[in-house]
Amino acid sequence: MYDYLRDPAAIYEKSFATIEREADFSGIDAAAVKIATRIIHACGMPEILPDLAYHPDLSAAGISALRSGAPVFCDCEMLTHGVIRRLLPANNDVICTLNEDGVPELAASLKTTRSAAAVDLWLDRLAGAVTVFGNAPTALFHLLERLETGAPKPAAILAFPVGFVGAAESKEALIASNFDIPFITLRGRKGGSAMAAAAINALAGLAREDA
Amino acid sequence: MYDYLRDPAAIYEKSFATIEREADFSGIDAAAVKIATRIIHACGMPEILPDLAYHPDLSAAGISALRSGAPVFCDCEMLTHGVIRRLLPANNDVICTLNEDGVPELAASLKTTRSAAAVDLWLDRLAGAVTVFGNAPTALFHLLERLETGAPKPAAILAFPVGFVGAAESKEALIASNFDIPFITLRGRKGGSAMAAAAINALAGLAREDA
Repeated sequence: MYDYLRDPAAIYEKSFATIEREADFSGIDAAAVKIATRIIHACGMPEILPDLAYHPDLSAAGISALRSGAPVFCDCEMLTHGVIRRLLPANNDVICTLNEDGVPELAASLKTTRSAAAVDLWLDRLAGAVTVFGNAPTALFHLLERLETGAPKPAAILAFPVGFVGAAESKEALIASNFDIPFITLRGRKGGSAMAAAAINALAGLAREDA
Repeated sequence: MYDYLRDPAAIYEKSFATIEREADFSGIDAAAVKIATRIIHACGMPEILPDLAYHPDLSAAGISALRSGAPVFCDCEMLTHGVIRRLLPANNDVICTLNEDGVPELAASLKTTRSAAAVDLWLDRLAGAVTVFGNAPTALFHLLERLETGAPKPAAILAFPVGFVGAAESKEALIASNFDIPFITLRGRKGGSAMAAAAINALAGLAREDA
């Protein structure tokens, strides 16, 4: 027998106590602390905290959108399966359009990735939606381009593209953008579906607990 | 318009070139380099390479198991959705037992987590299987305990539990174990479904390309 903690509640408690001890949340509002804590919990890295960037209205806008039944658009399938449905306050749709018919052809005609082309299939329901990126820098760039040319504004952008090509740049472009859309993102190369799922799950949890 | 790379092939090429430039793969065999590269690609962190630990027979054992149709057992649902099915060489089953009937009751009776209890539902098909952990330290610990008391041996263990409580310890226990089961793992707190999926997808890719 190995000596380790087996009780789920005790594991959560010790995890969050460790994060609280190791991450310096001073100056961060309570809702953002909850979201940041969940993201850190998902990756095991308190050291990412200084690289988290967020708009002051992120929690309020995200909570309000989720409560009003906004769809949650995701850039990859794995992310949709990380969303804890029972936390969503209005049985919100969780949608990934990446594998829909026509996306490969659209990507070819736009000379971009399937992930970017898939964003065009969000446009009809994009107004007031919550958009979540856990994979593709090109998808986030594509959303920003559509917004520049007048696409409907989502209520919130949770941006965690990951990797070596365009991830850091796409997130800096979001931070520098002038659309005044509330966002949360992680500067640099790090990101991924687990962090993105943690962010939307934390937001959903806030939307439920304050209801 | 933003200036960024949109061509999927060019993005992959530049990503892998960046990893090759920044990670020191000297002394690592070719198959392990492919697996490590995919894991680094999934998390954006070349700096994890020194913390990857693997058994010399990992690739051979994993490839052989997958080709012979071994099931792939996963400790969480999100991980199963990160497995690229078309890469699997024998239409292998990808199985997560976490949400099966009876798991909460079994967890309660064993005084452990649902993730750990779910491992007991692998036992019938565990001999020669590929086991993948992207979330729960308790699930990995539980597998090691079952092996200690004579459970059938899987062909390979891909171990990427993440977090602050037991993750590092469960992976060190795997490395120190005497079951002679080929494994790959990442020391420390880091891990997660994306890294675990990258590992099994890389192994599946190797199983197909050398066929």
